[in-house]
Amino acid sequence: MRAVDLIRKKRDAGEHSREELDFLVSAYTQDEIPDYQMAAWLMAAWIRGLNRSELAALTEAMLFSGEVLNHGDIPGKKVDKHSTGGVGDKTSLILAPIVAAGGLTVPMISGRGLGHTGGTLDKLEAIPGFNVNLSLEGFRRVLRECGMGLIGQTAEIAPADKKIYALRDVTSTIENVGLICASIMSKKLAEGIDALVLDVKAGSGAFMKREEDAALLAEIMVETGNRMGKKTVALITDMNQPLGRSAGHAIEVIESIEVLSGGGPADLRELSVELSAWMFYLGERTMNIEEGRRLAETMIATGQAKKKFRQGIKLQGGDERVVDEPQRLPKARSRVEVRSTSSGFITGTVCEQFGIALAILGGGREKKEDSIDHAVGLEFYKRIGERVEKDEPLAAIDYNSGARLAEARDLITGSYLIGAEPPAHSLPLVRRIIGN
Amino acid sequence: MRAVDLIRKKRDAGEHSREELDFLVSAYTQDEIPDYQMAAWLMAAWIRGLNRSELAALTEAMLFSGEVLNHGDIPGKKVDKHSTGGVGDKTSLILAPIVAAGGLTVPMISGRGLGHTGGTLDKLEAIPGFNVNLSLEGFRRVLRECGMGLIGQTAEIAPADKKIYALRDVTSTIENVGLICASIMSKKLAEGIDALVLDVKAGSGAFMKREEDAALLAEIMVETGNRMGKKTVALITDMNQPLGRSAGHAIEVIESIEVLSGGGPADLRELSVELSAWMFYLGERTMNIEEGRRLAETMIATGQAKKKFRQGIKLQGGDERVVDEPQRLPKARSRVEVRSTSSGFITGTVCEQFGIALAILGGGREKKEDSIDHAVGLEFYKRIGERVEKDEPLAAIDYNSGARLAEARDLITGSYLIGAEPPAHSLPLVRRIIGN
Repeated sequence: MRAVDLIRKKRDAGEHSREELDFLVSAYTQDEIPDYQMAAWLMAAWIRGLNRSELAALTEAMLFSGEVLNHGDIPGKKVDKHSTGGVGDKTSLILAPIVAAGGLTVPMISGRGLGHTGGTLDKLEAIPGFNVNLSLEGFRRVLRECGMGLIGQTAEIAPADKKIYALRDVTSTIENVGLICASIMSKKLAEGIDALVLDVKAGSGAFMKREEDAALLAEIMVETGNRMGKKTVALITDMNQPLGRSAGHAIEVIESIEVLSGGGPADLRELSVELSAWMFYLGERTMNIEEGRRLAETMIATGQAKKKFRQGIKLQGGDERVVDEPQRLPKARSRVEVRSTSSGFITGTVCEQFGIALAILGGGREKKEDSIDHAVGLEFYKRIGERVEKDEPLAAIDYNSGARLAEARDLITGSYLIGAEPPAHSLPLVRRIIGN
Repeated sequence: MRAVDLIRKKRDAGEHSREELDFLVSAYTQDEIPDYQMAAWLMAAWIRGLNRSELAALTEAMLFSGEVLNHGDIPGKKVDKHSTGGVGDKTSLILAPIVAAGGLTVPMISGRGLGHTGGTLDKLEAIPGFNVNLSLEGFRRVLRECGMGLIGQTAEIAPADKKIYALRDVTSTIENVGLICASIMSKKLAEGIDALVLDVKAGSGAFMKREEDAALLAEIMVETGNRMGKKTVALITDMNQPLGRSAGHAIEVIESIEVLSGGGPADLRELSVELSAWMFYLGERTMNIEEGRRLAETMIATGQAKKKFRQGIKLQGGDERVVDEPQRLPKARSRVEVRSTSSGFITGTVCEQFGIALAILGGGREKKEDSIDHAVGLEFYKRIGERVEKDEPLAAIDYNSGARLAEARDLITGSYLIGAEPPAHSLPLVRRIIGN
């Protein structure tokens, strides 16, 4: 088999066999196919597309390029959740302790912030001492002890994905449902889980702006998960405005603790409970979703989820006192408010720009090597449908350096769409369920 | 400007500006854009296509990546011919001396064999001592002295094309009319010519099997040439069977000398005269094509073309005695005949396979570094439309090694399509003229 022939085949819109995709992935991972050939194939695959069976084969080839974890020594079901990314999306920090407190095991391998979206690992690292780089053995130990573990992708997990993703990033071949699906699912299926809940974001703050694109991605991920014998469900959820009232790192940890303490913003609480309920249901902990919701609420109300979070932080080397003393988290030196330039109703947001503003302030990366300022953050005062008067504060910026503050401020001001009338109808937070 | 943005633009079927293509070509040539990004762009361009103005911009960017020759010190017009390649296509060796003898200058920069097609440089190197690697100064000296020079692409000529072509070769992005056009025209326009005659082959022995594909390539090359101020015409010529009676290296030199001596196969003579006539006409040596044909015939009949060939060989370090003593050319040790397995009429050939058979016998390359056996060759006894009896010889193979002889023999036998009836109509050798 030769790479040039496979490139030609996909270029001409042909269909790959399982053997061909196995060869492509394993030879590339072992440096036997050069970057330039893989780049040409990726572009051909991006434009021509991959059908369902190619996708399953590609995902499996990437999955088996590395170690597939087996937690057979840990009793009970293992479940995880994956989000396609948005602004202010901190549900992982909330649902992992809820679900672990509820009796399931959550072996979560997460990513870092990407473009305008935040990353769970970056948020966790706002907690002093928190170590996301556990060895696989360390990860298993934490899981056994407290039922939840939150780490980054290791060299052992889906190395093909790691290498291919880095190449896609510099060859404009990221935004393709097939390639995204293979990348996500190869990592998630390597976690050794029994079930997976997908939170596929749609809207101005998501990678997929249109619900139909999000639904297509959701469908193929669900199909791929089920085909691999893992119970998989996807929730298409709204990302036309930030989730909760904050975006940043320390500030999102604080908001997560608020929800775990029984407070916090309604939307964030609702989605965290909803996703937890699905995890309980797919993990066979409850008979149905409604019972799952009640269990999640109970874990919050009794303080068990919060206690679990404290335990998890401690086991991963973090300062668990932050749960009760948020002032121990990094704090920005200055705060400034962003005021509305007109009066009216908020009809929508260019949500992606909030993420970009945060990144500009040091809360995101332009290159992989960049370090992140965990203290900078945004607080959102207003939500879609609400009334705002001219000069009324829309949001606040916590910052350390004023260097690009004006730019960030303009981005935020411009991200609020203000009209004379409130929007005719509001979108539900959970827009659709796929795969059940 | 960033390469990722240009890749994304072409991926999404966008149109590049001249500045964007200039950046892409010059940054890649200067190693500022890595191979993998160029490979992704090439695949996007292959699939999405390049429109006429992008093509002109790309061609110019590649042309001006290196030196553009200026033969202002040599009086008279400079003209060249380029063929898209076929089997047995040796017209360059014939028309260069005809046209130089007729008073024009032919600064010909040629290529090597590619895939199933032969290359002018390889054929010339069958002549003992012939040096195709002249310096540009040496090239100019030869041109001044005898009006014809035949060399290979130097490092100074269109270095962007050299680098891009090597990458296309290993990323399955060769067969695209736009990219082919830019590659050919950037090299040819760097030769410092006033006019160019293109011989675009169509048929089973050409890269373009269908006449409409050949015509499209011809049209865009003619347009590009004219846009750059060079008189350009393309002849779409038939390549459904080998041109002339031979394919190989030494054997094609011999056949070329036969034509220059007033003999040789009718089709080869006809096409050589026709292309020479167009060169005379575009080079303003004659008032029309008919007069050009007569001048070409005269150059042959008076022996002036043959004399010019002798002079050209000598000036490039070759043994000019081969013109009168062909036994001085390399000769294969053995000859075997290929016989027909059935009786009937030859209705067509899978002409490409003759070229592959020749390559298998050592007369072609699999990798760029491979050396070539100039002595091996094929002689074709039968042409389309002719009657053949079972066991009658169809062709002969001159070979040195019997290692892959059986394979080559089978390929040749299988390449003759034999039917009960002769083909209803025969295709003319020159199928269409484009650009006049």
